[in-house]
Amino acid sequence: MPAGELRYPSPVSSPPPSQATETPVVVEEDEAWVWAQIKAEARRDAESEPALASYLYSTILSHSSLERSLSFHLGNKLCSSTLLSTLLYDLFLNTFSSDPSLRAAAVADLRAARVRDPACVSFSHCLLNYKGFLACQAHRVAHKLWNQSRRPLALALHSRISDVFAVDIHPAAKIGKGILFDHATGVVIGETAVVGNNVSILHHVTLGGTGKACGDRHPKIGDGVLIGAGATILGNVKIGAGAKIGAGSVVLIDVPPRTTAVGNPARLVGGKEKPSRHEECPGESMDHTSFISEWSDYII
Amino acid sequence: MPAGELRYPSPVSSPPPSQATETPVVVEEDEAWVWAQIKAEARRDAESEPALASYLYSTILSHSSLERSLSFHLGNKLCSSTLLSTLLYDLFLNTFSSDPSLRAAAVADLRAARVRDPACVSFSHCLLNYKGFLACQAHRVAHKLWNQSRRPLALALHSRISDVFAVDIHPAAKIGKGILFDHATGVVIGETAVVGNNVSILHHVTLGGTGKACGDRHPKIGDGVLIGAGATILGNVKIGAGAKIGAGSVVLIDVPPRTTAVGNPARLVGGKEKPSRHEECPGESMDHTSFISEWSDYII
Amino acid sequence: MPAGELRYPSPVSSPPPSQATETPVVVEEDEAWVWAQIKAEARRDAESEPALASYLYSTILSHSSLERSLSFHLGNKLCSSTLLSTLLYDLFLNTFSSDPSLRAAAVADLRAARVRDPACVSFSHCLLNYKGFLACQAHRVAHKLWNQSRRPLALALHSRISDVFAVDIHPAAKIGKGILFDHATGVVIGETAVVGNNVSILHHVTLGGTGKACGDRHPKIGDGVLIGAGATILGNVKIGAGAKIGAGSVVLIDVPPRTTAVGNPARLVGGKEKPSRHEECPGESMDHTSFISEWSDYII
Amino acid sequence: MPAGELRYPSPVSSPPPSQATETPVVVEEDEAWVWAQIKAEARRDAESEPALASYLYSTILSHSSLERSLSFHLGNKLCSSTLLSTLLYDLFLNTFSSDPSLRAAAVADLRAARVRDPACVSFSHCLLNYKGFLACQAHRVAHKLWNQSRRPLALALHSRISDVFAVDIHPAAKIGKGILFDHATGVVIGETAVVGNNVSILHHVTLGGTGKACGDRHPKIGDGVLIGAGATILGNVKIGAGAKIGAGSVVLIDVPPRTTAVGNPARLVGGKEKPSRHEECPGESMDHTSFISEWSDYII
Amino acid sequence: MPAGELRYPSPVSSPPPSQATETPVVVEEDEAWVWAQIKAEARRDAESEPALASYLYSTILSHSSLERSLSFHLGNKLCSSTLLSTLLYDLFLNTFSSDPSLRAAAVADLRAARVRDPACVSFSHCLLNYKGFLACQAHRVAHKLWNQSRRPLALALHSRISDVFAVDIHPAAKIGKGILFDHATGVVIGETAVVGNNVSILHHVTLGGTGKACGDRHPKIGDGVLIGAGATILGNVKIGAGAKIGAGSVVLIDVPPRTTAVGNPARLVGGKEKPSRHEECPGESMDHTSFISEWSDYII
Amino acid sequence: MPAGELRYPSPVSSPPPSQATETPVVVEEDEAWVWAQIKAEARRDAESEPALASYLYSTILSHSSLERSLSFHLGNKLCSSTLLSTLLYDLFLNTFSSDPSLRAAAVADLRAARVRDPACVSFSHCLLNYKGFLACQAHRVAHKLWNQSRRPLALALHSRISDVFAVDIHPAAKIGKGILFDHATGVVIGETAVVGNNVSILHHVTLGGTGKACGDRHPKIGDGVLIGAGATILGNVKIGAGAKIGAGSVVLIDVPPRTTAVGNPARLVGGKEKPSRHEECPGESMDHTSFISEWSDYII
Repeated sequence: MPAGELRYPSPVSSPPPSQATETPVVVEEDEAWVWAQIKAEARRDAESEPALASYLYSTILSHSSLERSLSFHLGNKLCSSTLLSTLLYDLFLNTFSSDPSLRAAAVADLRAARVRDPACVSFSHCLLNYKGFLACQAHRVAHKLWNQSRRPLALALHSRISDVFAVDIHPAAKIGKGILFDHATGVVIGETAVVGNNVSILHHVTLGGTGKACGDRHPKIGDGVLIGAGATILGNVKIGAGAKIGAGSVVLIDVPPRTTAVGNPARLVGGKEKPSRHEECPGESMDHTSFISEWSDYII
Repeated sequence: MPAGELRYPSPVSSPPPSQATETPVVVEEDEAWVWAQIKAEARRDAESEPALASYLYSTILSHSSLERSLSFHLGNKLCSSTLLSTLLYDLFLNTFSSDPSLRAAAVADLRAARVRDPACVSFSHCLLNYKGFLACQAHRVAHKLWNQSRRPLALALHSRISDVFAVDIHPAAKIGKGILFDHATGVVIGETAVVGNNVSILHHVTLGGTGKACGDRHPKIGDGVLIGAGATILGNVKIGAGAKIGAGSVVLIDVPPRTTAVGNPARLVGGKEKPSRHEECPGESMDHTSFISEWSDYII
Repeated sequence: MPAGELRYPSPVSSPPPSQATETPVVVEEDEAWVWAQIKAEARRDAESEPALASYLYSTILSHSSLERSLSFHLGNKLCSSTLLSTLLYDLFLNTFSSDPSLRAAAVADLRAARVRDPACVSFSHCLLNYKGFLACQAHRVAHKLWNQSRRPLALALHSRISDVFAVDIHPAAKIGKGILFDHATGVVIGETAVVGNNVSILHHVTLGGTGKACGDRHPKIGDGVLIGAGATILGNVKIGAGAKIGAGSVVLIDVPPRTTAVGNPARLVGGKEKPSRHEECPGESMDHTSFISEWSDYII
Repeated sequence: MPAGELRYPSPVSSPPPSQATETPVVVEEDEAWVWAQIKAEARRDAESEPALASYLYSTILSHSSLERSLSFHLGNKLCSSTLLSTLLYDLFLNTFSSDPSLRAAAVADLRAARVRDPACVSFSHCLLNYKGFLACQAHRVAHKLWNQSRRPLALALHSRISDVFAVDIHPAAKIGKGILFDHATGVVIGETAVVGNNVSILHHVTLGGTGKACGDRHPKIGDGVLIGAGATILGNVKIGAGAKIGAGSVVLIDVPPRTTAVGNPARLVGGKEKPSRHEECPGESMDHTSFISEWSDYII
Repeated sequence: MPAGELRYPSPVSSPPPSQATETPVVVEEDEAWVWAQIKAEARRDAESEPALASYLYSTILSHSSLERSLSFHLGNKLCSSTLLSTLLYDLFLNTFSSDPSLRAAAVADLRAARVRDPACVSFSHCLLNYKGFLACQAHRVAHKLWNQSRRPLALALHSRISDVFAVDIHPAAKIGKGILFDHATGVVIGETAVVGNNVSILHHVTLGGTGKACGDRHPKIGDGVLIGAGATILGNVKIGAGAKIGAGSVVLIDVPPRTTAVGNPARLVGGKEKPSRHEECPGESMDHTSFISEWSDYII
Repeated sequence: MPAGELRYPSPVSSPPPSQATETPVVVEEDEAWVWAQIKAEARRDAESEPALASYLYSTILSHSSLERSLSFHLGNKLCSSTLLSTLLYDLFLNTFSSDPSLRAAAVADLRAARVRDPACVSFSHCLLNYKGFLACQAHRVAHKLWNQSRRPLALALHSRISDVFAVDIHPAAKIGKGILFDHATGVVIGETAVVGNNVSILHHVTLGGTGKACGDRHPKIGDGVLIGAGATILGNVKIGAGAKIGAGSVVLIDVPPRTTAVGNPARLVGGKEKPSRHEECPGESMDHTSFISEWSDYII
């Protein structure tokens, strides 16, 4: 199936022009297109549901851009009595306005949810309601602050994200784009973890440290990886591009590209020596369970 | 032990008349009886603890019915700066007032917590403090909205429940009554999941999809099932009535009625061919660990 | 490595006098020393980051003691529209002021985070941002209320902690000091559980009941134990001092001191009969994964 | 100018049927007509001003009736951290729903503002923004509670109205309908005061007591009276129908119908013995200053 | 009428022992007696009005002393998003706890309202609902801060009092005890003003400066003075003990003891040379209007 | 006294360069100089008063410009549960940022308070605490919206200003710069009123309409006018430059430049035909009472 179709499935009308190369202009057009979709969705929902119209106007319809809408929504979600919404709004808006790559990543994440999650009925649904999406965008701002050596502020933001969304991503962790944190509750990602592009991570997933040392001690997740619910990956291990980690697995070893690791402790499907390799990209196809038959065989 | 006794254990005085058949009148009497208990408990607690009296009056003692108390409490718990408590209160009160089956389900859930959870010291404790109970009642309202095609509002409510209680039940999921979500943090239940009556579900339980398709892709849980902490059940599998799923299990297969599945990947205790069958209803007895000896045998 | 060094690692300057015996005077000096560190850290951060200065002044720098700062922070974090911050602040302040052992435990927990968690960059970072630390201090107040037979208030507090931090510790549970709840989201600790001193518990850990009875039904965790992420320990089992529980393990059996249990169901590394014993104290060294090679051997 | 035109000035289209007799049906139709106007105005404003749309939807457009909109708006305006919006909303909604005369009075007040105040550009402007209108509607609820012997609640509401709007009307005071409190800040009306219908009262007006006794000690204001800004009327005096009290006057004497009192102390224009009588109804014409020439003569 | 009866009018049962001399013990007993009355009143109201019970418990019944209740109530009334209730509560509680004279003044003010204002139905009504009483108590704390050279904090508190209650008393102004600010909206008292004991001041009263200089430029009000609604007294003038200022008067001159000044500009009743002297203490009798006949004569 | 000294009185050190002509560059330098003063004052206060430091950092010290500080402060002061602080902050910031004349007017108002009001101890005191200053700045934004035909938003803002500050200035009213609203409670300024530059207006002042018509019906106040407390000016009358209106006056006639009107009804001091003329500019000298001797003569 061509990528174009994958990205603009049937419920979404009028696909944008092809995006063979991601020039800045194309990225901006893409952002504008998604934002136009979001506004159209919100307008339709506000008309059909007056009880929600106020919410939709304040979060989406009164704003002139995705970055303003997102900054407003995050500011109001993450504020507390000691960290005011206006302060956070300002912080988010300044950061998103000045860094197009953060906006492009947000758009890629919106697309990821829309394409990969059958329960994601619209872009606006993701923007407003997906705690994984919101936690990830707020993390990107915290990460930027971290890299600017504004660490106390980055950690305060980190703490608010963990309190409000139960998603705990250390501000130093590097997260790619096109990420889907599905359900997201309980995700923990440590300081030296790296997550590639187009990765899908279910809830309760841990990318944890080994506790041994202060250095590089967390997993490195390749592009297109799928990590099932409740999987725990510990230590500075490599999960190769396109690999799949079964739900509930405890992974303490490297996992080669396009292979599947399952179980506690996790083993490679097909065996350590000659693991089975799959063709599709599980981070995008979200196929959690195709290894069942293989596994069943394996575990008999 | 007769059901009557099970339902009104010793600490709860003056049992109501037997409920052989659940006629509307009996259900209403039952609701009134539980509400009277709750008020009596709250009155006793307010007298013994002045620091809590304001809370107890605002949440329980100032209200004339269970539906008003519950609507007030949920409205104040789930509100945000963009979804006001008055709007939510109105929504909950209208829904609970117009649908006796929702109130009956709430009463059945209160009884379930009171009977099955030794830590549940009173009905009012459950009503005020059990995030699983509260998330479940709010879900029932979201589910009703979903079925009325008020989907954006149902999803907004879903999002608030997930933020506030870290309980993520898709509004389309069908949940029976007499449900105990014990501790509840991290529960995730997908769009096409079905949960029967008198089911007990511990925290961190996932009834997840397979990611393959948009259709019917989540588990179907029979009546009286007990699902242990951290269990992950994936795909359109059937967990038969009275089955028991061990803590931390990863279940990708059907589990026959009154059998026990444990492990990652989960296997039937007693073996796939002739699994052991238990007599009690684990969803009600909450016996998480009786399979230990068997399992120990099994895993030697 | 001498305890002194462990407790005051290099980034923390000017160690306090040795604490061979914990006399009240020494404990008070220790508290004063940590509080002085916290203030110095907050002052430095406020100067470097004006956007955070208001937050740091309101939570730390405007207060004359650790107990006031902590009471203020917990009161503002845990309040709701029906449980006002002033009420909670008063409750926390009265309890911390009148019970030096609670303050000493808080100091020990701050030290535990600072020493054991490489991501903990300062005492103030832990005080402000660690939901595990904050949940634990609030639990200690709830526990004291429980023991004073102020149970409805203890349970209301318990409920707020579970809502806000997604950490669910029954107020009757006994928790030692020098505890590190790392990440903390999803921790569940039941009514009759006991946790010793210097224990480290990762996120998603359950110390659960068996559901069989109302009596003593939860785990007893010895001093210096390390419990990995997502581990589930069920029933009135004993985890011996210095034992280590692997991430994702499901433990239904006693674990002898200084041994390691891993897997689902958990087995002792080295075998049931002659389990391997380690020398270090894993609750303090936080070594989650040293059993990997052994385990790999074991599971081949 | 015919009353019809006065009531439905040019900017307001499609006048309702004539209201020669105020039968319940007509009153209800009138309420419906005004509510339809308000919704149309709010819809137009929401379209032209997206920044205000959220506010307009939450206060007006999401509601199915004037009583719901008004109850929502008052509940949110008058709530405090110790008197929650949900409680007030409930109280207002129950009272307005069960008493059509309160709704009729609100409609008459809306019309009064729309007709008499050139600055009142729409019904919705008055409903949302006129503190005098809002204080008066909330007073009517407090007055009803007072008459039902729910005095502590009436006084608590009175206190909130005085804090929020700086309008202090004792809940026992009897206020007619078709009242315009213009600007309204600083209005004080005492316990035994009576205000007739179609009265216009400017800001800083006092209808005060004499302090001598506990009995009937406040002014009685006839129908159609106009009381200018800052006027102080003290004691159980009668201000006759259609009288006019000049701005800044201090009135300690009866004022005959259709006469004008001005000055400190107030004297009748035209002299005590044969005061000038005017024809128009000043409460409706709002003519504050027509007495100037007369006065100038008088005060030579 | 003997003072004792005046102070404990018929609705208030069981008068305390006579208070011939105000020794500290007697003052404390008096405080305890008034607090006991307040609790009894609140308990009675909470029983009769469940909708208000939560409010009464949070503001009065959950507190162990008048100073705690008052600090809680003021903290919640005066807080804002940038001045948190916990901070203000702490400030009020510390100040009231450490200074018995502030508590004695509060008690005297409560008695003043109860005795002088026929609309004051109970001590608790004044404590909870009288903005003049609350503004005055908060002013006393601001005044103490001012005298401790904590001027920025005193001015911030001053600003909150002016915003919330529309009562603007400069923190440097000296206010006696037994003060009744009746209705209170719009009262303005300047920096170098002094108000004696047992003074009654109606709403919209100004004790203003002359604008000429920075020095002592505001009025000095003697004991027992009554100042009517809307009176404006400007400059460093002396209003003698027991004097009465008519409503709406503009006073720019000294007023001798026990005389009455009325009008704009104010003149002494009876004439400048031999003003009439009254026997009663108007600040306590609250007789606003006894001068009417005299005035009428005067103004013929 | 040279203007320079008047503007930078002794407590304010290091005067900026002379401002003979108000070129944009000079205005910007002036704004920068005042902002630097405000930051220095706030820093000094934060150091001396830790309890206020959080407030000072959030309102002033964390901001990079006066317009940001003011927008933050107004947004938090004027927000409500239905008009969020983030929305208002955004509106204020956009307006102040894009219109230098609004910023220049704010600076002129700060200077006016600092120079004319002996109780104004610092620029930051005015910025944070003067409701008159804050209401005026918010009005200027409302006025701009009004002129942009964003009237519903202008009126919503107007309503919030009137609720929060008890200052009611119609958004259409034209207000000059260098305005001091002293105390400000109860000020009412109508739709077609015009206020010149360097005017001082005390509290409870009304610039009201006559009620006769919809057209131009409110007072026109010339430059440098001083209007005393409680004065009421009604109708389309002209108050000439440098005129003075006595406290409590009711003015229905034109007042020539540099004359004084006092009394109710107001008469010109010195008589209608040849009124006394004063030399100073009362709006700047704030001399409220120099007419006393004259008046006393007049009123004998």
